[in-house]
Amino acid sequence: MGKNLTTRSEDYSKWYNELVVKADLAENSGVRGCMVIKPYGYAIWEKMQAALDRMFKETGHQNAYFPIFIPKSYLSKEASHVEGFAKECAVVTHYRLKNAEDGSGLVVDETAKLEEELIVRPTSETIIWDTYRRWIQSYRDLPLKINQWANVVRWEMRTRLFLRTSEFLWQEGHTAHATREEAVEEAETILGVYTQFAEGYMAVPVIRGTKTASERFAGAEETYCIEALMQDGKALQAGTSHFLGQNFARAFDVQFDTREGDRDFVWATSWGVSTRLMGALVMTHSDDNGLILPPRLAPIQVVIIPIYRGEEQLVAISDAARPVMEALRQKGISVHYDDRDTHKPGFKFNEYELKGVPVRLALGPRDLENGTFEVARRDTLEKEVVKADAVVDHIAALLDAIQENIFQRALAFREARITPVDSYEQFREVLEAKGGFLSAHWDGTEETEQRIKEETKATIRCIPLDPKPDPGRCMVTGKPSPYRVLFAKAY
Amino acid sequence: MGKNLTTRSEDYSKWYNELVVKADLAENSGVRGCMVIKPYGYAIWEKMQAALDRMFKETGHQNAYFPIFIPKSYLSKEASHVEGFAKECAVVTHYRLKNAEDGSGLVVDETAKLEEELIVRPTSETIIWDTYRRWIQSYRDLPLKINQWANVVRWEMRTRLFLRTSEFLWQEGHTAHATREEAVEEAETILGVYTQFAEGYMAVPVIRGTKTASERFAGAEETYCIEALMQDGKALQAGTSHFLGQNFARAFDVQFDTREGDRDFVWATSWGVSTRLMGALVMTHSDDNGLILPPRLAPIQVVIIPIYRGEEQLVAISDAARPVMEALRQKGISVHYDDRDTHKPGFKFNEYELKGVPVRLALGPRDLENGTFEVARRDTLEKEVVKADAVVDHIAALLDAIQENIFQRALAFREARITPVDSYEQFREVLEAKGGFLSAHWDGTEETEQRIKEETKATIRCIPLDPKPDPGRCMVTGKPSPYRVLFAKAY
Repeated sequence: MGKNLTTRSEDYSKWYNELVVKADLAENSGVRGCMVIKPYGYAIWEKMQAALDRMFKETGHQNAYFPIFIPKSYLSKEASHVEGFAKECAVVTHYRLKNAEDGSGLVVDETAKLEEELIVRPTSETIIWDTYRRWIQSYRDLPLKINQWANVVRWEMRTRLFLRTSEFLWQEGHTAHATREEAVEEAETILGVYTQFAEGYMAVPVIRGTKTASERFAGAEETYCIEALMQDGKALQAGTSHFLGQNFARAFDVQFDTREGDRDFVWATSWGVSTRLMGALVMTHSDDNGLILPPRLAPIQVVIIPIYRGEEQLVAISDAARPVMEALRQKGISVHYDDRDTHKPGFKFNEYELKGVPVRLALGPRDLENGTFEVARRDTLEKEVVKADAVVDHIAALLDAIQENIFQRALAFREARITPVDSYEQFREVLEAKGGFLSAHWDGTEETEQRIKEETKATIRCIPLDPKPDPGRCMVTGKPSPYRVLFAKAY
Repeated sequence: MGKNLTTRSEDYSKWYNELVVKADLAENSGVRGCMVIKPYGYAIWEKMQAALDRMFKETGHQNAYFPIFIPKSYLSKEASHVEGFAKECAVVTHYRLKNAEDGSGLVVDETAKLEEELIVRPTSETIIWDTYRRWIQSYRDLPLKINQWANVVRWEMRTRLFLRTSEFLWQEGHTAHATREEAVEEAETILGVYTQFAEGYMAVPVIRGTKTASERFAGAEETYCIEALMQDGKALQAGTSHFLGQNFARAFDVQFDTREGDRDFVWATSWGVSTRLMGALVMTHSDDNGLILPPRLAPIQVVIIPIYRGEEQLVAISDAARPVMEALRQKGISVHYDDRDTHKPGFKFNEYELKGVPVRLALGPRDLENGTFEVARRDTLEKEVVKADAVVDHIAALLDAIQENIFQRALAFREARITPVDSYEQFREVLEAKGGFLSAHWDGTEETEQRIKEETKATIRCIPLDPKPDPGRCMVTGKPSPYRVLFAKAY
């Protein structure tokens, strides 16, 4: 199997598009902007889900499920929310098709028009807060900490697999609290969960911060985010957690009896990560040979490939491989034994490289004689020969080492691409030459932010959490600025 | 907490509707026909998903994800399929809303009309077979055995929580095979998985069979089903597995190179179970005091309620309860310790009865003195006093006993309600007096089946698998019949 993969230096964007399809992660469907997530890609998503779901439950959240449809009128209730989502939504107007009278096929049955149009949810704040009004009467009903795994639809004009699709999968948390402080703490706790997941499972280093007003979620008072850096020097927002204040409680009239005997509106958060993380995973680690997957999310952690001529050799090799497989599985390591006789070892080597399997074992007649395995690691492509009786412990340690190595490699890459700049000229130069995050002073106004965006395509990715005081002057207007913020071009 | 639950004998249907809401399983939303699945209900569904997902994977299936939207033209490609679904589907016609010029709120933006309408999937055969055309070229690509966990929409006019909702959650398997025999075997394998799940996890006995032509899935050549019997004597179809022949392969032109060097259309199956199972679970086991959950699906298997006056007693009781909780958790048993001081023990007893928690432990000052626990089982409401040092093993065994007991109870109930009848008069009498399954001779024609349905509301639930030869005469027309089939009124 030749990989025939465009290289990253040739065309990063093309490399990504090809890799996602060739590694069997996803492909475009016959429906505009909607993707098919293929079994191998979905298996990675399932591992992401399992880890996140466990973390949400450990922090006191429960799952539930809310309707896919949102009545049009709900969307209007929160003013900035409607601005954010009404322009790109799928609208259901009818509930029946019929055969055309001229025999030309199916047509919409105009007698089956909905009284009120329904929107396919772009996010669920409105339907959920309409429900919370029934669930919350008193401080005793709080906090309410719910998560939902769901599909959502945002009608995107230009789509790319995982990064921007009309339909995507995600989780959305929606919590309700008695006090502002508790809601802010929840939003920050979740930012911590997302950070821990991105770094600990995906091996993707992230910077935590808050968004500027213009980049906030529609309806939020504060948007916390984690920002990752891709290999082409562009940033990718990997997750957001919103402090919603009392906006949705006011819009849906969700009030409660306080502990002190008053009535007050409920405080809210919402937060989500999506299949977009799959794109971040691919673009952080992979190389010109294909995917590189972190062992903690790899559907297959170890592949064993027998190298043989004839049935007799295969039997002997399989006999030698079996106890190793069993011992690995005993340790909770997923192993695939590929003894297909329809493909040559070289083809298989290429295939598992393309698919990012962290460790490859090869076992041929000479290994059998010597009592050894050839062990290859995907992240560095290094090979070594390991004694059979040491191979299980070796692999267990190697998987940890790979997880750590790709994180450190991505971290070093990112650290080398955070550049402090002190003039707008320098800003433009570095942005052009090197990309990455630019740490610069900004006067805090939307006008300046907008001007920079229009002139350079760079946006403020975040105001880092707890920025260290570093008074300076805005690189554009020269007005005073208390600390630096991070700019980048972004996905 | 008074339960205030309508009794089953008063009004079975009302009892069900109230119980689903009061036990916190689900409720109606502000969107017509769409439900909110509440955290407690969703936790049961998650346990169902986990068990089924494991069983699918053990039988060689992989998960994937396909688009929620189906272009209108896809639906038309398989003739009987379109008949089945076009009349009750949600149709997306536009992709944008805008503010009305007269300031009256949001309206559909007529400039954003889709060229081709999209249907929110009622089931995914069409979009999946459109994809399989790209994935299948050769017998080497077969079998392809894929499952999807998803939401689907069928525009129902009369809805009931879990039993019939416009949106519901389900899994849908879609497999592709090189031969008819292999596809039939797959459909039957899945019927076995469903049976094992219904009986082994849900403790719901089911009858396996095939549907008559008129009750088949739209597009299937054979529909296998499992049928359960509810406490009111009505049947409920709990799962179906379809042998689709080459219908969808022909409709979407999915051909492959056979092992013998020919070209042929691919053979297909599809199969699914949905959140409807939640309704079957409730209506099989529960009583006038509330839910009765099988231990294998109960989110909380054991609740421990301390009975105390004052902080000091609570501390002593908690100290005694803690090692028991830990030992139970060690065994993988889920335990909830309810030491809320806002509610009295009697209130809590009622609450966990309503929610169907299989085992309740109570621990008061006298138990503390005697070194005992009071153990109550939900299925029989029996209580006994158990020595503290024996309580963990006792509970582990009790959970198994409850799982088995509620299955046997439901089985005995059903067996007592399978009535062989030999005349149409007797059929009507038994149907009216007792309900349940009626085992009767039928002439095999759609006319007779239709007449019986119109006159009695009973339908043929299934032709039992491998019916034992039992020649007789149709109870309606007197024409010859080779074996009996099962009739019932159904949900």
